[in-house]
Amino acid sequence: MEITYAVVGGDDRQAYLANLLLRDGYRVICSGLENSPILSSEVHAKSLSESVSAADMVVLPLPVTGDGVTILANNSYTRLYLADVFDNLRAGALVAGGMLDKKLLDAAALRGIVMHDYLRREEMSVLNAIPTAEGALEIAIRETDFTLHSSRCLVSGYGRIGKVLAKMLRDLGAEVTVSARKYADFAWIKQAGYMAVQAESISDCGKEYDIIFNTVPQILFDRHTLQKILNKTSVLIIDLASDPGGVDFEAAKQMGIKSIKALSLPGKVAPKTAAAIIRDTIYNIVQEGKNG
Amino acid sequence: MEITYAVVGGDDRQAYLANLLLRDGYRVICSGLENSPILSSEVHAKSLSESVSAADMVVLPLPVTGDGVTILANNSYTRLYLADVFDNLRAGALVAGGMLDKKLLDAAALRGIVMHDYLRREEMSVLNAIPTAEGALEIAIRETDFTLHSSRCLVSGYGRIGKVLAKMLRDLGAEVTVSARKYADFAWIKQAGYMAVQAESISDCGKEYDIIFNTVPQILFDRHTLQKILNKTSVLIIDLASDPGGVDFEAAKQMGIKSIKALSLPGKVAPKTAAAIIRDTIYNIVQEGKNG
Amino acid sequence: MEITYAVVGGDDRQAYLANLLLRDGYRVICSGLENSPILSSEVHAKSLSESVSAADMVVLPLPVTGDGVTILANNSYTRLYLADVFDNLRAGALVAGGMLDKKLLDAAALRGIVMHDYLRREEMSVLNAIPTAEGALEIAIRETDFTLHSSRCLVSGYGRIGKVLAKMLRDLGAEVTVSARKYADFAWIKQAGYMAVQAESISDCGKEYDIIFNTVPQILFDRHTLQKILNKTSVLIIDLASDPGGVDFEAAKQMGIKSIKALSLPGKVAPKTAAAIIRDTIYNIVQEGKNG
Amino acid sequence: MEITYAVVGGDDRQAYLANLLLRDGYRVICSGLENSPILSSEVHAKSLSESVSAADMVVLPLPVTGDGVTILANNSYTRLYLADVFDNLRAGALVAGGMLDKKLLDAAALRGIVMHDYLRREEMSVLNAIPTAEGALEIAIRETDFTLHSSRCLVSGYGRIGKVLAKMLRDLGAEVTVSARKYADFAWIKQAGYMAVQAESISDCGKEYDIIFNTVPQILFDRHTLQKILNKTSVLIIDLASDPGGVDFEAAKQMGIKSIKALSLPGKVAPKTAAAIIRDTIYNIVQEGKNG
Repeated sequence: MEITYAVVGGDDRQAYLANLLLRDGYRVICSGLENSPILSSEVHAKSLSESVSAADMVVLPLPVTGDGVTILANNSYTRLYLADVFDNLRAGALVAGGMLDKKLLDAAALRGIVMHDYLRREEMSVLNAIPTAEGALEIAIRETDFTLHSSRCLVSGYGRIGKVLAKMLRDLGAEVTVSARKYADFAWIKQAGYMAVQAESISDCGKEYDIIFNTVPQILFDRHTLQKILNKTSVLIIDLASDPGGVDFEAAKQMGIKSIKALSLPGKVAPKTAAAIIRDTIYNIVQEGKNG
Repeated sequence: MEITYAVVGGDDRQAYLANLLLRDGYRVICSGLENSPILSSEVHAKSLSESVSAADMVVLPLPVTGDGVTILANNSYTRLYLADVFDNLRAGALVAGGMLDKKLLDAAALRGIVMHDYLRREEMSVLNAIPTAEGALEIAIRETDFTLHSSRCLVSGYGRIGKVLAKMLRDLGAEVTVSARKYADFAWIKQAGYMAVQAESISDCGKEYDIIFNTVPQILFDRHTLQKILNKTSVLIIDLASDPGGVDFEAAKQMGIKSIKALSLPGKVAPKTAAAIIRDTIYNIVQEGKNG
Repeated sequence: MEITYAVVGGDDRQAYLANLLLRDGYRVICSGLENSPILSSEVHAKSLSESVSAADMVVLPLPVTGDGVTILANNSYTRLYLADVFDNLRAGALVAGGMLDKKLLDAAALRGIVMHDYLRREEMSVLNAIPTAEGALEIAIRETDFTLHSSRCLVSGYGRIGKVLAKMLRDLGAEVTVSARKYADFAWIKQAGYMAVQAESISDCGKEYDIIFNTVPQILFDRHTLQKILNKTSVLIIDLASDPGGVDFEAAKQMGIKSIKALSLPGKVAPKTAAAIIRDTIYNIVQEGKNG
Repeated sequence: MEITYAVVGGDDRQAYLANLLLRDGYRVICSGLENSPILSSEVHAKSLSESVSAADMVVLPLPVTGDGVTILANNSYTRLYLADVFDNLRAGALVAGGMLDKKLLDAAALRGIVMHDYLRREEMSVLNAIPTAEGALEIAIRETDFTLHSSRCLVSGYGRIGKVLAKMLRDLGAEVTVSARKYADFAWIKQAGYMAVQAESISDCGKEYDIIFNTVPQILFDRHTLQKILNKTSVLIIDLASDPGGVDFEAAKQMGIKSIKALSLPGKVAPKTAAAIIRDTIYNIVQEGKNG
């Protein structure tokens, strides 16, 4: 099957994505990427309505929108309206975007359109953990005056990012402790050879850390916990959790604890890889569309 | 809380388990381990009814029973009847065993007794994957005339054993391919750096393997698939999947493909570690009992 | 034996070194570190002549001197003259510094003083490879738009830095090729599981790289080789080799190949760890002095 | 250049070697392998004198001889005399064998023949460390009732086998301590993340081990040291060092310490891989012969 992709709006990732789809042999039409230095000259640019009406799969950016009305588009000279996507979508065509909220999904559903959120798909979350973890390493190497090798690191949370990051840190020679809550997670942590600590007793267990990487989107590092940590040693905290994050940054600042909020690392650290991850996930959505 | 454990029947693992519980400071009473060379002389041995009636937690072996009536007990001079457990259990006492079937669970439930199956707990499955994978390594090193280093290995299935085994093989220098079905599994396989193949096309993908480790309890390696594999190269197949296993051993034998069924490796390869894993899981069951 | 150390001049590393020696329980006197924000207030500061005359071991910075007359000292308000070290050294006292040239060694020898170059010691070179490699990782993550994971990396040279860096890259998921010359090196490269290429045919072997890390202090990447690399793909070159380095930067610039010269990474990336490495090496020198 | 190899005597390794050389496209003639079940039927068998007189490279087994007169040959129906090699060798032809002693080298030299000892070449020693280490793993898994994962292992010596084995053990999840003597070795041990202990104080450092792997050919584990180890815990000792080995086995036996002497593992554990290693080393010898 010859597939035509419309790649709409967004930042560098969308331009890389268009290039990758083209290189894979697909027809690709773009809207709202005119000003991108990355977009290949071989990708056709059209108006949003023309792009969408020609496409079998419309790929919206990550995130799709800030205001619920227009599509985010750093490299566009014109505004791109979501309504133009809904109005011009062909019957049977697919549409996907990242970080879709309920309002947007409902609006689409009212028009009989099912929007796919590629960011919520498991395989994308897993692969996105890689650039996130590399970005965290880069920050940690840059912002400390010691090596990761032989440093004492706490990884708070053992989900996807926690798993990928803990392994990288250990492979680089750090002494890694992981905090978790579930018995099964503790079994995996033991299997992997890390030290383990109950999430509830991070600051009470007598251990000292040089760097704390938080991956849990819940304020585990509140003023009280930060105070206990501070009493033991100086520490760098890198918060990788999505909002609300896991650190009381206000309190940390007052106490003089160096804390860094590091969000959306894949798009910042490795936009080309981030685009390849979106592409692979889009392919899976298309494949599932075919299968059923 | 002072806890008294009754450790009943089973093989070497139960004897190691009794020793470990004693070393951890608990009161331990044994039944049906009289003939074990491993059991510490400091563990008290009593009749089954006495053991059970004194216990806060009764630990039955893995598996508990073969006939549904008596408890498996390699090292016992007398028969141990399950009925004696049910009849003597104190109110509030816990009872756990491995590989409990519905009939047994129902029989217990009729008497108002909840039996805990430690083998079904996630944390036990995870930790048991370690001795299983080490046992598989041992077989593979022993049964081949080449090194695992630089060998081409297929790990069929990416569950707990697949994950642990694939990592060990790669760390030892093998070229590892993993077969799976789910997109998320493929993402994890890519993250870990293995080659990936669809479970459906193991024999069609043109790859050759020196060793195949199967972990999927489903006959993936039927006569047809074995024939295709045979056409390419000689191979050793090690089947780690629980019954019915994953290999048509009859067909493999006729074709001259060396195939090894390797079941219950933890108890065979590392009974002491297997006992420690049961102990840790038992502690979790006790802890949950306390928590409510 | 109670040992008194004089720590003289240098940059942050010397201040960290003084703090570390103090924490280890030794007497420490400093000169030329007055302006350092890192130096502990518990370290005694004295004039150079007083420091040296009280010391069992005088530790000069890395490098010791630029002009052969004064000691490099970023944090000093006054000039520190090498002559003051030679003139005030006690009989039997040791003196060590980093990157000593023949002139300096000869000058010392004329006065009957044996200077120890800690930078030339094998154990220091090995440990210094760690912050060097971490610094290289940091640059590579920061300066590319893709992840190290799945990237194609060439490590040119398999000495200390090559060994440490290749392992880190592979552990992070890169496809690592190492270039070398000796049969034994190729055996180690195969053992470690990297791809190998003859140093002579880096650009002829048909392979493409996303990042090249050079560790060989010899211009392997001349205009001719760079041209061949450029014909294949875009690449980032990070040159870690000490002078003269391994890259014709002029040619690279003209061709539009992004090339980064990264020297003295330990002191820049991880001065605290760099100081700990110097300390451990100094301890070994003192130990050998005792042993005879 | 078309090269003709004569593969003479030996065990399975020589048969595998002949097959490998044939598969690589060379002419191969064999002597003294008639009874091998492994030898390909496509390899020409001739008398020793005919084989040698037709060959550009004569490959003798490992070891070459036991009595200094005949060539070791498990699979031969006739005796193979070394004199027949010397008498029939063509001018310019090469001859290589494993574990050549001075007498043999001298005898050859008298006739103007330079014999190459492939076993003494660095690249062969490095690669042979892999099957040696895998064999040691196999023994350790088989002979213990616990997993290597979480076990406490001492690797005595940090040469080639020590390096390869320590890495394998750690990758499998063991707690690895390495003993060494040189500062540079300690730096590498620290870089790799193992615990370190001075070779002199293996038994005095208060540490307990579940398994000790010795790689140093010197009696480090004498009665005195064994006694100290025994006082702490039960232990399995696997001695991988060539004669005289590193363990007083008589004393160990009397004390009830389980000790295993494991020699010549590559030929036993992985004869096919061992043959490939010899082949690669032979190729290097031929290449050096060409280069001059």
